[in-house]
Amino acid sequence: MSGYRTAAIVTVGTELVRGLAVDTNTAEIAHVVSGAGIDVGETVSVPDDLAVLTGALRRCTASYDLVVVTGGLGPTHDDVTREAAAEALGLTVARDAALKETLRASAARHTDERAAAQVFNQADVIAGATVLPAVCGTAPGQVVPTLRGSLVLLPGPPREMRPILHRLAASWRSVGVEPRVLRCTGLSESDLQMAAQDVLGDRTDIELTVLAKPGDVRVVLFDRGAGAAALDETAAAVAAIVGEPCYSVDGSSLAEVVLSRAHAAGLTLATAESCTGGLVGAALTDVPGSSSAYLGGVVSYSDEAKVTLLGVDPGLISACGAVSDAVAMAMAAGARDALGADYAVSVTGVAGPGGGSPDKPVGTVWFAVAGPDGVRAQIRRFSGDRDSVRERSTTTALDLLRRALPDD
Amino acid sequence: MSGYRTAAIVTVGTELVRGLAVDTNTAEIAHVVSGAGIDVGETVSVPDDLAVLTGALRRCTASYDLVVVTGGLGPTHDDVTREAAAEALGLTVARDAALKETLRASAARHTDERAAAQVFNQADVIAGATVLPAVCGTAPGQVVPTLRGSLVLLPGPPREMRPILHRLAASWRSVGVEPRVLRCTGLSESDLQMAAQDVLGDRTDIELTVLAKPGDVRVVLFDRGAGAAALDETAAAVAAIVGEPCYSVDGSSLAEVVLSRAHAAGLTLATAESCTGGLVGAALTDVPGSSSAYLGGVVSYSDEAKVTLLGVDPGLISACGAVSDAVAMAMAAGARDALGADYAVSVTGVAGPGGGSPDKPVGTVWFAVAGPDGVRAQIRRFSGDRDSVRERSTTTALDLLRRALPDD
Repeated sequence: MSGYRTAAIVTVGTELVRGLAVDTNTAEIAHVVSGAGIDVGETVSVPDDLAVLTGALRRCTASYDLVVVTGGLGPTHDDVTREAAAEALGLTVARDAALKETLRASAARHTDERAAAQVFNQADVIAGATVLPAVCGTAPGQVVPTLRGSLVLLPGPPREMRPILHRLAASWRSVGVEPRVLRCTGLSESDLQMAAQDVLGDRTDIELTVLAKPGDVRVVLFDRGAGAAALDETAAAVAAIVGEPCYSVDGSSLAEVVLSRAHAAGLTLATAESCTGGLVGAALTDVPGSSSAYLGGVVSYSDEAKVTLLGVDPGLISACGAVSDAVAMAMAAGARDALGADYAVSVTGVAGPGGGSPDKPVGTVWFAVAGPDGVRAQIRRFSGDRDSVRERSTTTALDLLRRALPDD
Repeated sequence: MSGYRTAAIVTVGTELVRGLAVDTNTAEIAHVVSGAGIDVGETVSVPDDLAVLTGALRRCTASYDLVVVTGGLGPTHDDVTREAAAEALGLTVARDAALKETLRASAARHTDERAAAQVFNQADVIAGATVLPAVCGTAPGQVVPTLRGSLVLLPGPPREMRPILHRLAASWRSVGVEPRVLRCTGLSESDLQMAAQDVLGDRTDIELTVLAKPGDVRVVLFDRGAGAAALDETAAAVAAIVGEPCYSVDGSSLAEVVLSRAHAAGLTLATAESCTGGLVGAALTDVPGSSSAYLGGVVSYSDEAKVTLLGVDPGLISACGAVSDAVAMAMAAGARDALGADYAVSVTGVAGPGGGSPDKPVGTVWFAVAGPDGVRAQIRRFSGDRDSVRERSTTTALDLLRRALPDD
C-alpha cells in the first residue's frame, strides 16, 4: 500500500509550452500512477523557468499526496528542477560525494572541460531525499518527503525516466482494479456511449468513459466499488450489444487481434499498400512475434510498382484508374500470389492534399481482401487531412483482414 | 495585435490524467499561441470533473490573459466545460435558439431519442460569449471575456479543434519572430548544446533550447530581441559548425529533405524493409507529393519475401543469416532492380524483444544503399526497446539515403 491517495504530474520543458514537442511522459506516468490505485487530479507542464516551476511545485505539493516531476534534471543551466524543488519545500541542496564518483566516467567522455564539469550538477541532492539511481543515462531521480507525502523527481528523456519510474512504482502496492477497455471500430462515439450507458443503467460503482480517435473508439470501465467480476460482466455485456465492431475486450490493438486470429488458424498474411505507404505493414510488425503470421508486403506507390511487383495489368490501371475496385482487387490477389500468403489486403486511395477529382475526391479509398475464397473490394470516403485519411485507411485495412479471418 | 501577453492551455479529459491517451492538442495549441507572440506560462490537464475543472479555470483566468480550453464541449453528461467556465467566471448559461437550429440535422441522425435531445446541449452559450461556429463536427467553440482577457473554449477532437483554432488565431496579429529550428541526426544532445552555445557566446537576445529524441536532435533558437536577421545568421553559423549531421535549417523533416534532394536531381527512390516493416515507406509517403520521387518498396518480413520479391539468393540467407551485410546489400540491389529506381535503401535487423543471439544481439541492424555507383552496407547497434530500435532504424535508413543523394 503506497499510502498516496491523490497525485499530480508535472512535466518541465520550454519545448512543451511552446508546442515544439508532444509530451508523452505525462500519459506514461499517469498510467502507472493510476494503475497503482492513486487518483491523478491534474497534470501540468511548465517551461524551464525557476520561478514558474517553483510556484507549480509549491501548489501541487500542498494539494496532492504524490507529485511526480519529469525533466530539468540534466547537467545544463536549463535544468532547474532540483533547485525549484528545494525552494518550493524550503530545503537545501548539497553535492553527494558518492553520486559524484558514479558520474566520473560520464564526465571523462566529454572533451570540453565545461561540459565535463557540468556533469557533476547531477550529483546535487535535496536534503532528506532518497536517490533513485539512473538505469539508462546519467541523471538519477530523487524522492523528497513532503508534508502530504512525496515529491518524486525523474529525468525527462522517456528511456531514462521509464526504468526509474517502474522500479519506484513496484514499491506502491496496486490497490485498484485495472480498468476494462473495449476497443471498437466503425461505430460513432455517441452510439457507443448510449450502448454502454444502457448496460450500466443507474449504477454508480462503475464509471464509464468513451474515447474516440479516427476509426478507433474505446469504452473504458473504471471500478468505483463494483469489483473485478462485475467489471468483467459489464464489459462482456457491452461487447455483446456492440457486436462485431468490438474487436477486443482486453485492450489488444487491431493489429494484435488480426495476428492472433491468423496465428491461431495457422494462416499467413500479406499487404499491398499504395496511399498508406507502409503503415499497414508497420502496424502489423509493431507487434512482437508478428513474423509467425505476417510474411510481408509491397508498397506499390507508383503504377510501375503495381505492375512489376504485384502483376497488376497495366490496361486495368489505364482503364479504371489506380484508385478503383478493379486495381484494389488485382493488388490484393497479386500480393497473395507474390508472397504465397493465405490472405492479403490492399489499399489504394487519394490521401490528398492533391490528386483528387470530381468522381474520386480526396479521401476516396478502395480496399480489397484476397483469400482462399476469392477477392472482395470495398470503398470508403474519409473526411479529414492526409494524416487522417492515411490513419483511417490503415485501421480499415486491418479491420477488413480481421473480419475475413476466422474468429478464434 | 492580440493584446494578450500571457496564456495558459487547459485540456479536459479523464483519459488524459489516467494515461489512457496522449494529449496532442496541447502541443498544437501551444505552437499556434506561441507563434502569435503570446507567452504560454503553463499547460494543465484535468479530468472530466466539474469541481476540478472549475478550480483550474478560476486559477488560470486570474493568472493569464488568454486561457484556451479544449475538450468537454460535446453533448454528453461528461461534457462539463461550459458549466465549469460559467461557474469559474460567475456567469450564466442559456440555450441559443439560432445555434439550436444549426444542430437539428445532427440531432435527426440519431435514432435514440435521448441521444438526439443531448445534441442540443451544444447550443448552450455562456452569457457575453462569442460563438465560434463548428467547421468539422457539431460542437462550436466560445470566446468568453475575462477580467484579464479571454477564455476560449474549443472542442476536444483534434480535427474539430484545429480549424476553429486557426480561424481564431488569424485574428491575433503575429508579433513574434518565428523560432529557427535546426534538425540533426547522429550527434549527442550535449555536443550539440556546446556547439550552439559556442556560437551564441554571452548574448542573451537569442534563447537556445536543444530537444532530443532517439536519433533526432533539434536546436531551437528563439528571438529575445535579436531580430530575424541575427537569428538567421546564428542558425547558419551553428549549422556550419555542426556540418553534415545537420540535415535541415528550416524545420524540414528527414523524409522531406530526402525527397527534395531526389526530386531536385530527378532521381527515384525505393525501399526494402525487414525489421522496420514499412516505417521507412510510411515516413516518405507521409510527405505530400512524395510520388514524384518515391516509387515504392517491399516489406520483406519473411525470408521467402526476400527471395521472391527482391531476388535475394536463398543460399546467402542460410550462409550469412537474414541480418547480415550480404543480405542487406542484396535487398537494396534487389529493390533497386525490381522497382527500377535510381537509389534504394534496405534495413534488416533484430528489433527484439526476441530473435537476438550472442553475435547478433537485439538492436543489431544492417543497412545498405544501392545506387548507380554500387552498393554499400553499414551496421548499427541500437539500445532500447522494439519501438526505439525500429524508430532509430527508420531515421538511419533515411539519413543514409540523404547522404547518398546529391546535395541541392
